[in-house]
Amino acid sequence: MSDIEIARKANKKPIQEIGAKLGISSDDLLPYGHDKAKISESFIKSVQDRKDGHLILVTAINPTPAGEGKTTTTVGLGDGLNAIGKKAAICIREASLGPCFGMKGGAAGGGYAQVVPMEDMNLHFTGDFHAITSAHNLLAAMLDNHIYWGNEQEIDIRRVAYRRVMDMNDRALRQIVCNLGGVANGFPRESGFDITVASEVMAILCLATDLADLEKRLGDIIVAYRRDRTPVYARDIKADGAMTVLLQQAMQPNLVQTLENNPAFVHGGPFANIAHGCNSVVATTTALKVADYVVTEAGFGADLGAEKFFDIKCRKAGLKPEAVVIVATVRAMKMNGGVAKDDLGAENVDAVKKGCANLGRHIENVKQFGVPAVVAINHFVTDTDAEVEAVKEYVRSQGSEAILCKHWAKGSAGITDLAEHVVKMIEGRSAQFAPLYPSEMGLFEKIETIAKRIYRADEVLADKKIRDQLREWEAQGYGDLPVCMAKTQYSFTTDPNRRGAPNGHSLPVREVRISAGAGFVVVICGEIMTMPGLPRKPSAENICINDDGLIDGLF
Amino acid sequence: MSDIEIARKANKKPIQEIGAKLGISSDDLLPYGHDKAKISESFIKSVQDRKDGHLILVTAINPTPAGEGKTTTTVGLGDGLNAIGKKAAICIREASLGPCFGMKGGAAGGGYAQVVPMEDMNLHFTGDFHAITSAHNLLAAMLDNHIYWGNEQEIDIRRVAYRRVMDMNDRALRQIVCNLGGVANGFPRESGFDITVASEVMAILCLATDLADLEKRLGDIIVAYRRDRTPVYARDIKADGAMTVLLQQAMQPNLVQTLENNPAFVHGGPFANIAHGCNSVVATTTALKVADYVVTEAGFGADLGAEKFFDIKCRKAGLKPEAVVIVATVRAMKMNGGVAKDDLGAENVDAVKKGCANLGRHIENVKQFGVPAVVAINHFVTDTDAEVEAVKEYVRSQGSEAILCKHWAKGSAGITDLAEHVVKMIEGRSAQFAPLYPSEMGLFEKIETIAKRIYRADEVLADKKIRDQLREWEAQGYGDLPVCMAKTQYSFTTDPNRRGAPNGHSLPVREVRISAGAGFVVVICGEIMTMPGLPRKPSAENICINDDGLIDGLF
Repeated sequence: MSDIEIARKANKKPIQEIGAKLGISSDDLLPYGHDKAKISESFIKSVQDRKDGHLILVTAINPTPAGEGKTTTTVGLGDGLNAIGKKAAICIREASLGPCFGMKGGAAGGGYAQVVPMEDMNLHFTGDFHAITSAHNLLAAMLDNHIYWGNEQEIDIRRVAYRRVMDMNDRALRQIVCNLGGVANGFPRESGFDITVASEVMAILCLATDLADLEKRLGDIIVAYRRDRTPVYARDIKADGAMTVLLQQAMQPNLVQTLENNPAFVHGGPFANIAHGCNSVVATTTALKVADYVVTEAGFGADLGAEKFFDIKCRKAGLKPEAVVIVATVRAMKMNGGVAKDDLGAENVDAVKKGCANLGRHIENVKQFGVPAVVAINHFVTDTDAEVEAVKEYVRSQGSEAILCKHWAKGSAGITDLAEHVVKMIEGRSAQFAPLYPSEMGLFEKIETIAKRIYRADEVLADKKIRDQLREWEAQGYGDLPVCMAKTQYSFTTDPNRRGAPNGHSLPVREVRISAGAGFVVVICGEIMTMPGLPRKPSAENICINDDGLIDGLF
Repeated sequence: MSDIEIARKANKKPIQEIGAKLGISSDDLLPYGHDKAKISESFIKSVQDRKDGHLILVTAINPTPAGEGKTTTTVGLGDGLNAIGKKAAICIREASLGPCFGMKGGAAGGGYAQVVPMEDMNLHFTGDFHAITSAHNLLAAMLDNHIYWGNEQEIDIRRVAYRRVMDMNDRALRQIVCNLGGVANGFPRESGFDITVASEVMAILCLATDLADLEKRLGDIIVAYRRDRTPVYARDIKADGAMTVLLQQAMQPNLVQTLENNPAFVHGGPFANIAHGCNSVVATTTALKVADYVVTEAGFGADLGAEKFFDIKCRKAGLKPEAVVIVATVRAMKMNGGVAKDDLGAENVDAVKKGCANLGRHIENVKQFGVPAVVAINHFVTDTDAEVEAVKEYVRSQGSEAILCKHWAKGSAGITDLAEHVVKMIEGRSAQFAPLYPSEMGLFEKIETIAKRIYRADEVLADKKIRDQLREWEAQGYGDLPVCMAKTQYSFTTDPNRRGAPNGHSLPVREVRISAGAGFVVVICGEIMTMPGLPRKPSAENICINDDGLIDGLF
């Protein structure tokens, strides 16, 4: 059966029953249909004094076209922990419409390790992304309106820093000239759109601790600079209040369920290649209050997702992760070892061994943060015993352990070994989490630290304009912010075609942007785009409602 | 008490109880919170063979800054009909975020004649507008993507007819150049954004009878022309299926309640000045199957809203309205009679009499459609008996009747006279509805017919390019479409400052656009904008969450 066939056969329970498993009463759930709900602000406030559960991060090797199954493993491990008698919940991100209509497909796990309702999660869900898009664009409209009606703040229209967003892959909007058409339409200027998942408002929603913190951070957004180079904030434009109102519902975490009827928090969805890539702090901290084990994921490979999870999310929210699971597949090892996609079906132990270098580097990297790691081999039917053994042996040689997991085919029954192992790791109390760099390090030094220690580049290439900009932000008091790297997810380098564990490369920095409200400096490296485009044949062309009234083509 | 204070004290019932009043079981309701729900497609299908109830249209004089209370009267009349023992429901439009953050304020009635939950209805509600925005912009992205990847359809990029939309008042986006930035970003071209309520996708959602009809109409959207002037359709871009999937939930009507716990359908929301201005056909036809009396409204004055309700919605959906209520206020009559807003508090019977000319012309106009009309005087505390009597006497002289209504202050108890009168009108069976013009009339003649018979203009001014374009569409087989006038709502003319009942003016047509999927030709007259701007001091500046956690400034 395909993922979608399995999802359609799901034996879903009313969302009130899922909430009850975590002690959340139906009064504290705002239903969206019968299988989705938002958790009330008052419930979240009421559990703040409780002890925290244990936090587990699921990350992965660099993604390959073979697919790794990070979300699938996150879901599987959550079900596995419940299966061995632990009270566990998972925390994952919401899906963006952009990739759904492009080529990525659904983002709700796979096989017998899925979160449902799959269609809703990959479409409008509870409307959070739409609320973020609206709040983001309201500020943009108010900013241009401010300039139009006299520009009291004396904004330098050449230095408007704030762009608009759309939850769409639309390359036509990357770079535009707006305010054309004469006096009634304002002052022409260059601008552009990013995809919503790259919005600073998305990052703020994911990092804010409550509505008051959300409003404060929204007010802190730098939208432009004056002629004298001083920043103009969203609160100078008086947009922070209305933006908060637009985001009030969106701030509440969403609760859904796995195929095994275990609770899943799905909230926030920044991409890990162009944003910080973690689900919301509110969802994670709430889950930690109501469950003993919380499994969360960070986007793409550990070089991007895990680094930002540790250096941005955990640093900001004071989270203490106690175990890391690095997901790998035999097929992805083979691709890293040089095998073409069409040849993945044939056994090739040598290629597996060769490709393990990519995995090895991620293991090393994760250990730098002081958290013990285990490798989950997400089993695929064509994997041979010799290939699996090659991965295990390699991982052992790196001082870690790799566990074969069959949750895709068997649900929780296929992943109890990993669940037991993770519990043992946590009970061993060996985690001593610390971020990679201290907050007081200089901004450029932070970039260099990540480039050298995580990406293993020899140097960072950045022209004077970029270095000057970083120094200017330091002078303005933003020097203690962490950096949020925007880089291709396919390689440790900025070249998406360089697989494995390359050395001797440089990290070219193209642009830096400050997210003063979210609290980080975005560092755009190589050719990465903050507004993706659609492929030659977008998956949207095949998406439709079929004769049975079901949605085809979405996955 | 203010509108919002009254709304906050509402004694709301669970939405399942409201559904039960109409015989809709809780299984057929998809809840959005505890006070909103969508009605299932299967329920709607199951009632198709039932007899229809009676349809009543509420329209108004040209709006003035004094406020008329059309929605308030629609809500009040619905409650009034229920109060006199009739099974009645109301059908109104959803609110747009644009005006909420600009200056219009809420769109859910007022005083003791409101629909709740007011905040939700004026913010994201059930996400329908966001779905429409997404579906609209997906087609735009797929269109530019098609051109980017080789332009197989041979689209003339100078003749791309399809713009993007945003649910925002953002003049900066009215006219843009997109696809800038070099080869990777496509072919630069001029374009722009309209507000979502002006989207053809919005019109299609409001006019489609079911999902299959929706998909067919979406496919019919003309997005561009080839070098040989032949049209390129949305289905040529293969976007119709995915757009339908995005709109699947949005197609289902929303059910909420009045302050008196009577059912209210709130679905679709095109503006009547730039679009056809009526709630959805699905909501109205469903309401007619489950209630004996259905009260609906059309936007702005009868020159725009009622004309399009009759000539577009009723024509297309085969609806047979049996009574029209024209809402007027003493204050608005005074303004039409030349009194300034600050002087409205003082009695001025002469000004009332003078201003009645505007009302008189709307009465005359409505009668041209063969439906009996009654005037509702929406009472305001400062109205004097002599002023009210002046309106009544004037209306009598026009062969109609005016009834004083106090629903704002008293709810249904204040409007039973009107309710009884409307029932009597319907039981009199005098309605013989017919559209103003036959479908087979030429497009330009249709414009002239509305201009002369409704706006009372002497002539239509349109240059050769526009007349040629209309003839071209006729040659392509679109000659039988009705026309959808886009014009200022403040006057019968295109000059918003000309109140009363002017004569001897001309109607300048600036642009024509074809909505082949919705099934009409949009005729843009005078200075009307399809993307509004924000005022100098947008209401968004005062919108916030107050210390009690309630939303301030939204109304």
